[in-house]
Amino acid sequence: MAQQLIDQRDLDFVIWEQMKAEEILANEKYAEFNKKTCEMILREARAIAIKEILPTLAEGDKEGVKFENGVVTTPECFRPVHKKILEGEWQSVGVPQDMGGQGAPGHIAYAVAEYFLGANYAVSGYAKMGAGTARMIHLYGTQEQKDKYIPNLVAGKWGGTMLLTEACAGSDVGALETTAVRNPDGTFSLTGNKIFITNGEHDLVENIIHPVLARIEGDPPGTSGISIFIVPKYFVNEDGSLGDRNDIVCTGVEEKLGIHGSATCSMSLGTKGKCTGFLLGEERKGMNIMFNMINGSRMGTGLQGLSYASAAYLLAVNYARERVQGRSLADFKDKSAPSVPIIEHPDVRRNLLWMKSYVDGMRSFFHYLVSCSTRMETAATQEEREIYSDLFEMLTPSIKDYLAVKGHEVCVQAIQVFGGAGYTRDYLVEQYARDCKITSIFEGTSGIQAMDLLARKLGRKKGAVFAHLLKEMNATVSRSKEFEGLKDLAEDLEQAIPAFAATAEGILKRAASPEFMTAFAHSLPFLNILGDMMMAWMLLWRAEISSKQLADGAKKKDLDFYNGQVKTARFYIKTILPEVLGKMNAVNAGSGVAMEMTSAEYGGL
Amino acid sequence: MAQQLIDQRDLDFVIWEQMKAEEILANEKYAEFNKKTCEMILREARAIAIKEILPTLAEGDKEGVKFENGVVTTPECFRPVHKKILEGEWQSVGVPQDMGGQGAPGHIAYAVAEYFLGANYAVSGYAKMGAGTARMIHLYGTQEQKDKYIPNLVAGKWGGTMLLTEACAGSDVGALETTAVRNPDGTFSLTGNKIFITNGEHDLVENIIHPVLARIEGDPPGTSGISIFIVPKYFVNEDGSLGDRNDIVCTGVEEKLGIHGSATCSMSLGTKGKCTGFLLGEERKGMNIMFNMINGSRMGTGLQGLSYASAAYLLAVNYARERVQGRSLADFKDKSAPSVPIIEHPDVRRNLLWMKSYVDGMRSFFHYLVSCSTRMETAATQEEREIYSDLFEMLTPSIKDYLAVKGHEVCVQAIQVFGGAGYTRDYLVEQYARDCKITSIFEGTSGIQAMDLLARKLGRKKGAVFAHLLKEMNATVSRSKEFEGLKDLAEDLEQAIPAFAATAEGILKRAASPEFMTAFAHSLPFLNILGDMMMAWMLLWRAEISSKQLADGAKKKDLDFYNGQVKTARFYIKTILPEVLGKMNAVNAGSGVAMEMTSAEYGGL
Repeated sequence: MAQQLIDQRDLDFVIWEQMKAEEILANEKYAEFNKKTCEMILREARAIAIKEILPTLAEGDKEGVKFENGVVTTPECFRPVHKKILEGEWQSVGVPQDMGGQGAPGHIAYAVAEYFLGANYAVSGYAKMGAGTARMIHLYGTQEQKDKYIPNLVAGKWGGTMLLTEACAGSDVGALETTAVRNPDGTFSLTGNKIFITNGEHDLVENIIHPVLARIEGDPPGTSGISIFIVPKYFVNEDGSLGDRNDIVCTGVEEKLGIHGSATCSMSLGTKGKCTGFLLGEERKGMNIMFNMINGSRMGTGLQGLSYASAAYLLAVNYARERVQGRSLADFKDKSAPSVPIIEHPDVRRNLLWMKSYVDGMRSFFHYLVSCSTRMETAATQEEREIYSDLFEMLTPSIKDYLAVKGHEVCVQAIQVFGGAGYTRDYLVEQYARDCKITSIFEGTSGIQAMDLLARKLGRKKGAVFAHLLKEMNATVSRSKEFEGLKDLAEDLEQAIPAFAATAEGILKRAASPEFMTAFAHSLPFLNILGDMMMAWMLLWRAEISSKQLADGAKKKDLDFYNGQVKTARFYIKTILPEVLGKMNAVNAGSGVAMEMTSAEYGGL
Repeated sequence: MAQQLIDQRDLDFVIWEQMKAEEILANEKYAEFNKKTCEMILREARAIAIKEILPTLAEGDKEGVKFENGVVTTPECFRPVHKKILEGEWQSVGVPQDMGGQGAPGHIAYAVAEYFLGANYAVSGYAKMGAGTARMIHLYGTQEQKDKYIPNLVAGKWGGTMLLTEACAGSDVGALETTAVRNPDGTFSLTGNKIFITNGEHDLVENIIHPVLARIEGDPPGTSGISIFIVPKYFVNEDGSLGDRNDIVCTGVEEKLGIHGSATCSMSLGTKGKCTGFLLGEERKGMNIMFNMINGSRMGTGLQGLSYASAAYLLAVNYARERVQGRSLADFKDKSAPSVPIIEHPDVRRNLLWMKSYVDGMRSFFHYLVSCSTRMETAATQEEREIYSDLFEMLTPSIKDYLAVKGHEVCVQAIQVFGGAGYTRDYLVEQYARDCKITSIFEGTSGIQAMDLLARKLGRKKGAVFAHLLKEMNATVSRSKEFEGLKDLAEDLEQAIPAFAATAEGILKRAASPEFMTAFAHSLPFLNILGDMMMAWMLLWRAEISSKQLADGAKKKDLDFYNGQVKTARFYIKTILPEVLGKMNAVNAGSGVAMEMTSAEYGGL
């Protein structure tokens, strides 16, 4: 059986049945799309992901990127696939039409992205990152900059990056030391060293356009003194042709745990004193401009976690169906009983259902966020627009980190289903686990997301945004109670919601008190609780829709799917939610001991 | 600062203060050892582990083992270190004196092993595995076999293995297909293929002695028909010199997620029809003989998990002390405040304390098991002997899996402390995570351990063994209540114990009912709960001893250590134990939904 990356039936369910994407398509913005065209896009995306991109996954990992004399060579097998992605214009499916993209609705563009990321993040990244740089220039650039850079970036002919991190400026961006000196012609001369730059240098594109964070000499220290510059690898002439090479070079690539096909570069700017940058937007507004991009990057990273988890789960469940080992525990007394596929064994079933509950729940959570992001653009009223925008802002750190961390846990559990074979390179699960680990690190670590959630997002509008979220959860609870088979599940969630609300209120209150350091020592457990509750909600919601379909006489071919949804919700609510309530108790108890430890008491000196 | 692998102060605490190893040393069996000699052994072990073995860790990972024409070449840097280990006779520290080893008490031998495993499991394994094979021959071999094989195996001159797994016989050993045909001279001709054989072939020893599980032709299918054979790579002549090569060859080595320096071999026996094996023990008793070894292997695997976790934690905590990034959250309004080491940031503190609580708790849990194992041999009465033996049997599956799984989780969290740097090969944490993942797979996966615990161990002697464990926990609770600073912690654990007892009783009852399949679908969560409760007990016990020392006027140099113990117990009991109670609720609810899922309902078809 060919490997799947997403359960297509599940994706269809989330997009059309749960998120009701047809309502969104009715908006004039998406006049060129209808359900049929969207389904066709997804079918083609699936085909190219599985037939073209996926075969490069293990090979790209093994070969890795090579670095010599400033030149970065990508794995040999990437070149033809990269070309095919650009030919099909897949890199710009979700890019707005006014930027030269296809402007597909978010649900479709992100579904395509899930396919591509699960097939090979590294190869997709080379094609796609230009669009991010283009969007930044689209929003903040001069007309000349837009004309010069956007078309080739969106077409994937040129690559894009984000030069942010430095050795002493990781999570603390404000500590950066790259400087920009004004030239008489209005350009700037940049000097500095950047690290961990994804696709900072490679051989798949003609040119690379680097947005670079730097401080103009004389500007204040910290984030308020940071500006952003466009630094092209090759200057672009008036006629659009490529000119001289700029003084920005790759000085090395990282050897990493995973994503070996993705070039993680160290970059030096101005070693010859000749690195020219062009200011983007206003001076000292670099952080604002960058933050405008960050929600998109965080969503993409969360999706990356989900995509690995989904692919790893499907590998595991299909292996469990095929691998015959041991007789059924039900036949433990009958030594002549036949051996059975391991999906028959209780602990394997539990593990698979555990994985499935997270993969399903995370996909719904993700598309719920996509739905907020889309509806905030298509909303009819300002009020509606604000509701969706607020929810989107509040949930983004959780999407980023929860999908990253749980995605990795799912990959690790997938290895377990394969036993010894899972530890070898013969199956992709160990690679998915390695590749996935980056997602809880880049675009802001877990700790950074948790801090963002507690400091800036959770208390928005005096808690009204969070209250709205609970209202939506409760609406699902009410609808679910109408189904006999969901009543007890709905009641369990109904009881968990006030406990969740109290936990949120408690930690917010503590964050505003003299004990605020203690509150932040519980911020990551709280972020996880939020994600856990989203899982419970999303799975009950899925079960509710499925129960309705079953009651209304679903087609025979859909029975397994809908029944599986109801049982998955039951599993999560009956076996995982009790643990989540325990986690809430811990946050509520609010022990301050982590802040009381002295450095020496941690030992190991 | 040189890397540490174990916090020496912590190890001393566990061995001498918590497990009271001096009581054990008083036994005549250990006449040659006293506290001073033991401390000297540990000091030397530490020196060789850090100065000689550790430097091979990253290099061995990078180079890996090479396979060509049946020959397995270990990394170049392993050879001199392997030689040094044998010269110091470190491979036989814990081997009984009547087998030619040093016969050091368990606490000391396993402490040495923790050092060596954390420094490089792969290189230690080549030196040590002969002892396991020797022990099997010591217990079951003829006098001739003992004389022929044991001395060189214990001296590490020859290597040992365990040829158990086949492509279709992994967890289900009884399905193996390797056959043994009787020869007129009493030997057997073996034919078959084995996989996943650790150190099945390599270049560090003169000879390798393989214990091989096979079925004598005509013997019944399943485990009851399995015998065990000694299959030397080179036959051994009467005078002890090496004779002809036996017909057993390595056909390949696995490419794996980690432990790249450890040769995981596929072995073919009798491809030329000339593989001769010598029966070990009685016919059809192969499984019993092997199971006699399995507790030792499982302890070793648990220790391996702990050793990676301990080393990873120490790397992380020291990095957190050195890495300066961002100002203190307490200074969030003061933009001119200085940047601080990241150990000052609340979420980093929480993460480190989370890691520390498991590393400390696991080391105590492990040495508690060692204590049971030692005391069952030195016990004065049969009753005492039985108590320790029963506890040892019951806790072994938990030591194996809990330390493996939590050990891996600790390694993964250590990566997080390093941020992007942790994802690179510049630090050892990513390697520890990769290497550690094998521990929840080999020597019986998590699922197998959980099944063993529930089916064979938990209900031993009608629950009397489990009841004894709870009695010991309660004794620590009583003693702890005498300290003001531990009272609330003791009360929390006191309340958790009956809940734990009820959970155990409930799952045992269900395992004996028609719903037994459902009970086994909760067996792994139960195994985790047992481990979690052991952590709570061990940490409170540590805090109790520490509180006593503090009350009695501990030396100034010990204050940080003891205060750290009290705070670590507080962290675990106040922030993790509530979650454990939630897990108990889930097991008690005992949802049967994992058994109700049909294969199709898992999706992905």
